Amino acid sequence: MEAPSSPPPKKSVSLSGIIAGETAICTVGRNGDNLHYRGYPILELAQGCAFEEVAYLLIHGRLPDEAALAQYRQQLGESRGLPREVITALEHIPAATHPMDALRSGVSALGCVLPEKDEHGTAGARDIADRLLSALPSLLLYWYHFSRHGRRIDTATNASSVAAHFLHLLRGQPALPEHIRALDQSLILYAEHEFNASTFANRVVASTGADLYSAVCAGIGALKGPKHGGANEVAMDIIARYDTADEAETDIVHRLNQHEVVIGFGHPVYTRADPRSPIIKSIAQRLCQSGGNPRLFDIAERIESVMQRDKALFPNLDWYAAPAYHMLGIPTELFTPLFVIARCAGWAAHAIEQRGSGKIIRPTAVYTGPDERRVPAIEERSA
Amino acid sequence: MEAPSSPPPKKSVSLSGIIAGETAICTVGRNGDNLHYRGYPILELAQGCAFEEVAYLLIHGRLPDEAALAQYRQQLGESRGLPREVITALEHIPAATHPMDALRSGVSALGCVLPEKDEHGTAGARDIADRLLSALPSLLLYWYHFSRHGRRIDTATNASSVAAHFLHLLRGQPALPEHIRALDQSLILYAEHEFNASTFANRVVASTGADLYSAVCAGIGALKGPKHGGANEVAMDIIARYDTADEAETDIVHRLNQHEVVIGFGHPVYTRADPRSPIIKSIAQRLCQSGGNPRLFDIAERIESVMQRDKALFPNLDWYAAPAYHMLGIPTELFTPLFVIARCAGWAAHAIEQRGSGKIIRPTAVYTGPDERRVPAIEERSA
Repeated sequence: MEAPSSPPPKKSVSLSGIIAGETAICTVGRNGDNLHYRGYPILELAQGCAFEEVAYLLIHGRLPDEAALAQYRQQLGESRGLPREVITALEHIPAATHPMDALRSGVSALGCVLPEKDEHGTAGARDIADRLLSALPSLLLYWYHFSRHGRRIDTATNASSVAAHFLHLLRGQPALPEHIRALDQSLILYAEHEFNASTFANRVVASTGADLYSAVCAGIGALKGPKHGGANEVAMDIIARYDTADEAETDIVHRLNQHEVVIGFGHPVYTRADPRSPIIKSIAQRLCQSGGNPRLFDIAERIESVMQRDKALFPNLDWYAAPAYHMLGIPTELFTPLFVIARCAGWAAHAIEQRGSGKIIRPTAVYTGPDERRVPAIEERSA
Repeated sequence: MEAPSSPPPKKSVSLSGIIAGETAICTVGRNGDNLHYRGYPILELAQGCAFEEVAYLLIHGRLPDEAALAQYRQQLGESRGLPREVITALEHIPAATHPMDALRSGVSALGCVLPEKDEHGTAGARDIADRLLSALPSLLLYWYHFSRHGRRIDTATNASSVAAHFLHLLRGQPALPEHIRALDQSLILYAEHEFNASTFANRVVASTGADLYSAVCAGIGALKGPKHGGANEVAMDIIARYDTADEAETDIVHRLNQHEVVIGFGHPVYTRADPRSPIIKSIAQRLCQSGGNPRLFDIAERIESVMQRDKALFPNLDWYAAPAYHMLGIPTELFTPLFVIARCAGWAAHAIEQRGSGKIIRPTAVYTGPDERRVPAIEERSA
């Protein structure tokens, strides 16, 4: 297999290439640039399906037919309200809180109020997974509007999809179809990625037999880290630094000469290209043009050219997701929480699969500490 | 190495024996029956130290001298109060909630109100870890008394230790020194156990650069599972089933003949014996005698004999922790949350170590799903 671009150094990854279990959900990185959900190529899913179809595929194991999809949309539409206790919990989360901490707390609170019914089976977990697809935008945006503006929003919209629901709650009014579809496609791209760190954390939790909320909370925690989900927000900060593509090129070249890492490029699993990147790039381009900000796209694309030319690195999904989300009017601090909403479908599928395997995940470690020693009496210890 | 007893089947464990990283914190299972924290044998630590010394060893890397210990106890004593917003969050957690869900929510809420200051360094994480040692009993028991009896307790005790603080809050008055020491020793035994599932989940979250609260929430979620921390509660249910040792023997023999698994015996890492078991057994024996319930100990010990005779299985820590905690007046549903309070020291040490390594944990999977296939048009799908 040819590997024209340099992947990030493998030494920064633990368990890289080590098999931690079996999955029927996803393959990633085959031939260096492929992604499939349950055998379907990501490009076909993103072009031919709605996010609800893909979520159904991940959580329920197959693509829905027309009747199943209609029923699923209706079920998701009815799960948008939040229990009173959860609303109270959200209202007491300080405004200065990191949105991922708020979302983790909201999910944890929901897990107290509407716990999983059948922790050892799958029906209860699938119900929770479906509910979270609707409840996550509600949790996030209820807290966001309340903490920012003291506004108590009604989370029960009659929007036609998760993407439409999110944009409606964010903006307080229905969104344009092209905006809904742009967000919808991005959710498909972010929905699943095999044993990435957040999915794996979620599987380790599920492997003990714990409930789905506990597993999802672990996923949110892992995704919060700047080495994982936080990357799309950093990408936006980079792109927003510049007023023109020329300015961006000059500065990025300078930073690369200083050995600075530019977030949004390269990938530990893909060696040739991120197959999601062309799809999100065309979405970003379309939104920048129709939204009257073609320069934003030009800046992002120029930095892509520099990274390709000088570092042989390709953009990953996060790079063009940043300008796309920006053009949808989504505040940068909500980019990673939006990633949660999409990835929750994958996490749930993996948690259910892991529990079904009956295996607890319990690796071992190389010990690098001191040899056996006696406990000294306290008066013989030095500080 | 001789292995006189049968360990549970290894096939129920994923990544068993696979190295997932380096640690200087713990060795477990060397020679089949050993446990060391930073090189110190568990028996010496349990007999010669207080839990605060062991927590300091784990979190801060060395055993404290007298001055450091005094300062540490004072610091922990001053961290027992809960922020107003967290108290409100606890008061809105339904009474029927699983105590581990309540604890996870309390920690998540605390992470919103008192976030980690320096997420990439270690000082902030160590501060949070120390705070959690005091805050966890406060969170748990505030919610417990409020949800059970509508009572708003004052969590700021002047108890001399974490164990004393826990018992004081549970009972509403200072505990006897022998009760405090019994609980204190059990916390030492539960404090750390290398790359067990909850610690590993916590490390995976920390590996992305996420904050300590997110890592601890993942640990709590994993520990909740019946294959992990939930075992000490199940052990109590088993022991409480019987009125006499003879009755216990008859029934356990019958159940073993039906191939029922008796929780509290054997261990995936120890092959010869659990080194913590003799310590907790003598604590349980002492408490059952002094508490006027020697029969409870007799039942537990008789079942141990049967398991040794008929299955060649040894008791693990959870087996005798159950009657010990029962004799301390601790409700069974708080056994696993108590495990959290102890293990939090180990989780924090591992999260800090993992972040320090700079490595993200990202294994791979064997794909067992369908081959590449086309996405059918929705009208061509069958339900």
